[in-house]
Amino acid sequence: MTSTIVSPHLQLELAQRFRDVRLRTLGLCNPLTPEDMMVQSCAEASPAKWHLAHTAWFFESFILREFLPGYKLFNADFPWLFNSYYRNFAEFPEKRLRSSFSRPGLDEVLAYRSYVDEGIGKLLEAGAEPEVLKRIELGANHEEQHQELLLTDILHAFYTNPLRPVYRNDERKSDSSSARRHGENPLNFVQFAGGMVEVGFTGTGFCYDNELPRHRVWLEPYRLANRLVTNLEFAEFIADGGYRKSALWLSAGWDAVEQNGWKAPLYWNENGEGWRLFTLRGELSLEEIGTAPVSQVSYFEADAYARWAGKRLPTEFEWEAAAEAQPLQGNLLNTKNLAPVAAEDEGKQLLQLWGDCWEWTASAYLGYPGFEPLAGSLGEYNGKFMSGQMVLRGGSCATPKAQIRSSYRNFFQPETRWQFSGIRLADK
Amino acid sequence: MTSTIVSPHLQLELAQRFRDVRLRTLGLCNPLTPEDMMVQSCAEASPAKWHLAHTAWFFESFILREFLPGYKLFNADFPWLFNSYYRNFAEFPEKRLRSSFSRPGLDEVLAYRSYVDEGIGKLLEAGAEPEVLKRIELGANHEEQHQELLLTDILHAFYTNPLRPVYRNDERKSDSSSARRHGENPLNFVQFAGGMVEVGFTGTGFCYDNELPRHRVWLEPYRLANRLVTNLEFAEFIADGGYRKSALWLSAGWDAVEQNGWKAPLYWNENGEGWRLFTLRGELSLEEIGTAPVSQVSYFEADAYARWAGKRLPTEFEWEAAAEAQPLQGNLLNTKNLAPVAAEDEGKQLLQLWGDCWEWTASAYLGYPGFEPLAGSLGEYNGKFMSGQMVLRGGSCATPKAQIRSSYRNFFQPETRWQFSGIRLADK
Amino acid sequence: MTSTIVSPHLQLELAQRFRDVRLRTLGLCNPLTPEDMMVQSCAEASPAKWHLAHTAWFFESFILREFLPGYKLFNADFPWLFNSYYRNFAEFPEKRLRSSFSRPGLDEVLAYRSYVDEGIGKLLEAGAEPEVLKRIELGANHEEQHQELLLTDILHAFYTNPLRPVYRNDERKSDSSSARRHGENPLNFVQFAGGMVEVGFTGTGFCYDNELPRHRVWLEPYRLANRLVTNLEFAEFIADGGYRKSALWLSAGWDAVEQNGWKAPLYWNENGEGWRLFTLRGELSLEEIGTAPVSQVSYFEADAYARWAGKRLPTEFEWEAAAEAQPLQGNLLNTKNLAPVAAEDEGKQLLQLWGDCWEWTASAYLGYPGFEPLAGSLGEYNGKFMSGQMVLRGGSCATPKAQIRSSYRNFFQPETRWQFSGIRLADK
Amino acid sequence: MTSTIVSPHLQLELAQRFRDVRLRTLGLCNPLTPEDMMVQSCAEASPAKWHLAHTAWFFESFILREFLPGYKLFNADFPWLFNSYYRNFAEFPEKRLRSSFSRPGLDEVLAYRSYVDEGIGKLLEAGAEPEVLKRIELGANHEEQHQELLLTDILHAFYTNPLRPVYRNDERKSDSSSARRHGENPLNFVQFAGGMVEVGFTGTGFCYDNELPRHRVWLEPYRLANRLVTNLEFAEFIADGGYRKSALWLSAGWDAVEQNGWKAPLYWNENGEGWRLFTLRGELSLEEIGTAPVSQVSYFEADAYARWAGKRLPTEFEWEAAAEAQPLQGNLLNTKNLAPVAAEDEGKQLLQLWGDCWEWTASAYLGYPGFEPLAGSLGEYNGKFMSGQMVLRGGSCATPKAQIRSSYRNFFQPETRWQFSGIRLADK
Repeated sequence: MTSTIVSPHLQLELAQRFRDVRLRTLGLCNPLTPEDMMVQSCAEASPAKWHLAHTAWFFESFILREFLPGYKLFNADFPWLFNSYYRNFAEFPEKRLRSSFSRPGLDEVLAYRSYVDEGIGKLLEAGAEPEVLKRIELGANHEEQHQELLLTDILHAFYTNPLRPVYRNDERKSDSSSARRHGENPLNFVQFAGGMVEVGFTGTGFCYDNELPRHRVWLEPYRLANRLVTNLEFAEFIADGGYRKSALWLSAGWDAVEQNGWKAPLYWNENGEGWRLFTLRGELSLEEIGTAPVSQVSYFEADAYARWAGKRLPTEFEWEAAAEAQPLQGNLLNTKNLAPVAAEDEGKQLLQLWGDCWEWTASAYLGYPGFEPLAGSLGEYNGKFMSGQMVLRGGSCATPKAQIRSSYRNFFQPETRWQFSGIRLADK
Repeated sequence: MTSTIVSPHLQLELAQRFRDVRLRTLGLCNPLTPEDMMVQSCAEASPAKWHLAHTAWFFESFILREFLPGYKLFNADFPWLFNSYYRNFAEFPEKRLRSSFSRPGLDEVLAYRSYVDEGIGKLLEAGAEPEVLKRIELGANHEEQHQELLLTDILHAFYTNPLRPVYRNDERKSDSSSARRHGENPLNFVQFAGGMVEVGFTGTGFCYDNELPRHRVWLEPYRLANRLVTNLEFAEFIADGGYRKSALWLSAGWDAVEQNGWKAPLYWNENGEGWRLFTLRGELSLEEIGTAPVSQVSYFEADAYARWAGKRLPTEFEWEAAAEAQPLQGNLLNTKNLAPVAAEDEGKQLLQLWGDCWEWTASAYLGYPGFEPLAGSLGEYNGKFMSGQMVLRGGSCATPKAQIRSSYRNFFQPETRWQFSGIRLADK
Repeated sequence: MTSTIVSPHLQLELAQRFRDVRLRTLGLCNPLTPEDMMVQSCAEASPAKWHLAHTAWFFESFILREFLPGYKLFNADFPWLFNSYYRNFAEFPEKRLRSSFSRPGLDEVLAYRSYVDEGIGKLLEAGAEPEVLKRIELGANHEEQHQELLLTDILHAFYTNPLRPVYRNDERKSDSSSARRHGENPLNFVQFAGGMVEVGFTGTGFCYDNELPRHRVWLEPYRLANRLVTNLEFAEFIADGGYRKSALWLSAGWDAVEQNGWKAPLYWNENGEGWRLFTLRGELSLEEIGTAPVSQVSYFEADAYARWAGKRLPTEFEWEAAAEAQPLQGNLLNTKNLAPVAAEDEGKQLLQLWGDCWEWTASAYLGYPGFEPLAGSLGEYNGKFMSGQMVLRGGSCATPKAQIRSSYRNFFQPETRWQFSGIRLADK
Repeated sequence: MTSTIVSPHLQLELAQRFRDVRLRTLGLCNPLTPEDMMVQSCAEASPAKWHLAHTAWFFESFILREFLPGYKLFNADFPWLFNSYYRNFAEFPEKRLRSSFSRPGLDEVLAYRSYVDEGIGKLLEAGAEPEVLKRIELGANHEEQHQELLLTDILHAFYTNPLRPVYRNDERKSDSSSARRHGENPLNFVQFAGGMVEVGFTGTGFCYDNELPRHRVWLEPYRLANRLVTNLEFAEFIADGGYRKSALWLSAGWDAVEQNGWKAPLYWNENGEGWRLFTLRGELSLEEIGTAPVSQVSYFEADAYARWAGKRLPTEFEWEAAAEAQPLQGNLLNTKNLAPVAAEDEGKQLLQLWGDCWEWTASAYLGYPGFEPLAGSLGEYNGKFMSGQMVLRGGSCATPKAQIRSSYRNFFQPETRWQFSGIRLADK
């Protein structure tokens, strides 16, 4: 988070951004019942209601309690109840217990959100000091991260329910041109010169501590695929026995294949008549979304696919160096697709850089040279996860646009599959 | 389940019983929100909403589909969705997935119940054949078992919620005389002659297959404690290091102590000022309910306590032989205590035989000589659990009165603690 | 262990018995290398060297240290190092660590045994008091139990070694008549009247505490199969899909089938040309030993087989009542077969009661009415295992003859398969 | 492995190297009994006998079978029995089963080694082609890696044996000056300019595929500690509550602390009078070896220590850039210390770069830009482990000198502790 000097204009802008973010979170819950918002269907996920409460907790804990004079807690238990993992801040319940938080009820959580909104409103009206504004900005970004998680967690929750409910049942005109377009948008590789580049955040806006310091990196020349790997292309990997050939896999990846019985990406099922892919719009056939990017694959699957294809995954710096100059537009949360969609052929340029799917990189998630975590509890935000995880870049169809930028570093353990995570190939 | 000949009077009685049971289930859910009814907080438990649906499923699956001409399924998915474990009947979801059943919503489950009630009503009005009546009787008994589970599961769910909500917050006048009464109701042992006795169900009413055939058993003379072990008495066992002395425990019991870190019964917590016991009325101090029977103990704890006290646990046949002649009255679900309560001193007779707490016996749960499970899917009701479990007798404060009788055999694995399960001592 | 008065004759007899037992243990190790004697291939098993040391430890700990004046420990570490599970006696290493006991070496363990033998010799020469003689008798019985374990553990160790070494490679004339004899020795059922019987040890010799007190039991009339179920018969169960039909299994048994992927008894393997069964003589074909009793099955498999066959397993008391009057002779360790062998048809009488395979009974392992464990550490011998285990009767081809009697109760958890454990059917 | 042209001189040198390596392996086993060589005491370790056999297998599988005309297998089972993890080569037994390989006995394994030695001898005498020589070189390096593992595995095996045997009991004069010297050799930091450096192997000798290609890396200026962190310094971290302060740890590191109950490095024990450290010379007090480098710490502990000290760990490239110009001498296997030893103060220069302890770096183990694994089965040597592991540099007291160089990359999972792995701090 860079230091900023605050103008009245920026204050207004931030107030608007705060309201927009808070409203969008509620909007994402519109299709959900209070019961839906109780489900926690895997170790990575949290109930939607918990996301609602925890994002309010963040503003209360790191801003209102410290900066709003005379602030009274909404509920004396919430400071520890809705803490996620900030050990320096307070005790917190085991993550797996979140599915037992039937109380507070949704009504009370919504009231908590309003109460916190009011508090932040007061601070902003009063003309907040720079540190407060920085933290509101951080809180908005934090909440946007949870918007994405809320969607991916609900997708998993609905997949786990044997009835496979549909999150969004508005009509989408069938992507009938999929089959036709396949083959018409062949994978091309775009050449980059490499050399000495700078990576890491630059500018005056918001960024996380893990995007800093900006620093120099030497890159050999490289090539990046112009678009993401599609469902149809990934189906060929499966058909060719990709999940049965140990030579294609990292050792730990092969262990994951065997232990979990992986035979396809997370939401793929064979029903005797071909692959069916579960999405926020329900189950669709491979034909219907074949040219959309493959999603919900682990790093291990991305890596094995690349080896099978005779290519490799890009490093996070190759990706960043290529993306920095590109306009930030794509299939992000704001486009309301809520699913990766097929790339339009636009010649030789890079497509689908932003949105659609997070792109697994070949880089382990580590601190940059001179990395300094934020002081205090906020220092636990990013730094303490710097082991055993791989970096993903570019955002997904569930990532708010304000959230993403070329220096943004997402990270997950290599076996993680419940995110919109896909594959961009690289080559020498 | 014994064969019966059905009179019109019995039909009316059964119709009334059916309505009462169904109504009571709903009544037990009155204090619960739809969100509460989603929680599944341990492997043994199920969400309350699932109990509502599964008990309707039982009537639909074993009665309406087979015996109501033209019956149409309420929902084509429910036959497998709400199956618990009847492998011969249909596939069923893994038990742990029940916490993801946000759909169907509570409203739909309640509509399902009404729909099934209507169907059973039609059958009863039409003058059902004996097999149908037998199955309705079985279904009512089945539902009463789930009433008990619903209460014990909610108690666990609320205990797991870090806020520890209260199921029932009506005032109960403080049991202020507890301390005084302790010592005034000393443990006495009642002598029984033993000899050749008959055990197992007799009579014309309902019973489960595992209570049959009635058969002869030879008993040596024995003595039973006149009442259950109290919380205060169990606290002495703890204070004496009972949970730290391996010599008091069965080998598998000691493993359970070490692996689970047991230091007291399930819902006991030390807060620095003494023991606090979580109940459906919230957390109470040991002083408040000290003379009530200790509850939520495993077989291993019951056995270790008995060894510590220089006594033993009774066999299920010693218990049954003593109980058969006793009037069926006690602190059962119908009394609305919803908690074990202190025994009144009534001299040398057996107290608390019925209700309060299930009483762990020293008998393994096995089939009686000549045991025959019911035919078809219903044969999976009891027989397939006949390994690794111990028998409990007498019912608890959560057991409907119609459910219990002297030949009724409950059974759980010896490490199970989430039930109202307590201790009656026996002696030579 | 019953109280005895000791005559000089008995003393001599006991001295001889002690020597015989000790010598036999060493003899069983003849085919083994020091490296073989290090292997511990499953949680139930111990290395052969550990058996050698622990059986010496038993005599040292419970006899020499207490009763031999001036006894000096062979090694100050051995009292805790070779303790198995007697918590009251001393700390002991975790069982799984026994495979790391490369030191003391075999030579030192053999020297330890000689040293202990010498000590016991001195006690016996001096004319030991009754308690000492009782304990020597107990120690001899204890060692005989470990002889059986040593053999079953080595069988498992050799099975685990991918080379599948042979314990005993002397020629045994091929049981060529197997196929022919099958069908000529059909399974018959022998009728027993039941009624009031006495069970439990009677007489003046040695017995364990768990065989006492002798007491009365009422039995309904029953029938026992004249011989054990054969490999060929069990192969029919497999061929009929026995391991794929959940309805044949106890619930916990079906869990075991699924979790462990059971498809046949422990040492059976399909090699494309039919079943191969691993034995102490190496791998043999089903044809070669088809009429021998099936062995290395769990209680769950025995129970499922019985259900498939329309029969049941006997209770331990039905077995004991039938066996008490039968002469104690059979295929025990002393016959040197070291494998179950086919029964000879001798009409309608009970065959294979003793030896061949332990027979799973339908009885849970619990204390008899009035059961009293031995005082002190020896009280941990039997009593503390009285939960979650099933009783087996009759001994196996690895059981020393002196070890077995009609009241002897062996016990294992129902999923246990590494023993010579087989199936005798019972019927109404 | 770089391509080489082979002169007769090089052939002779290689023949000598081959003999030396093979002989040293046997020498390391001198203090061991055949029983010691059976022990496999943790998941990472293998029995010493297995190391003996597997290193012979490597020569047989990748050289003799392919290149020695008419080569006959020593034993037809060994090709799969002693395969470690080369899936492309043959099936192999689960690693944990190696402790059941009592057969082949040690004698047979030694004969296998001689037989293989003879075969390699023939090839060398005949004037082998370059590919053969390259593979012999690879095999020698492979065997040297296993020499190190053999020692660390035996240390763990002896630590697991409750008797804690001593591998090497020759007298070593007490390091009496330890206490005195502490404080006299303070930790200094040596400055490096960074800038554009080249890393990766260069030259004509042997290297592994993962050291290539040599490539450019940009480094910011940095400082490295002149010596490793000592036992006494690490003891201060412990005394300051280092293992109880979650803020010092990576999130996954803190999980490891809690799950494994870590309170000190692997072989440290408190006996009431201070720390005792288990070594190949037996248990020594902290006083005796206080100024020696701390060893057997995980990456998580190294990282937490650095954070506590206000420093950080170096990257592998910072390390390599600093080490490339340094003479290769230090406390390696060849010095026969078999333990890390205290650094001598030599002013401001880098000490203990080579040997003593492997140094955890802050770099994840990944392929270099353009990394190409070897073709065929040998390609599984390094590449397939490139996920979830951290790089260590510099070798240890158990690393043969010929094995190590500035570009050598060792790698382990961050929780690994059974190696001689220690800590060098870095600073801005």
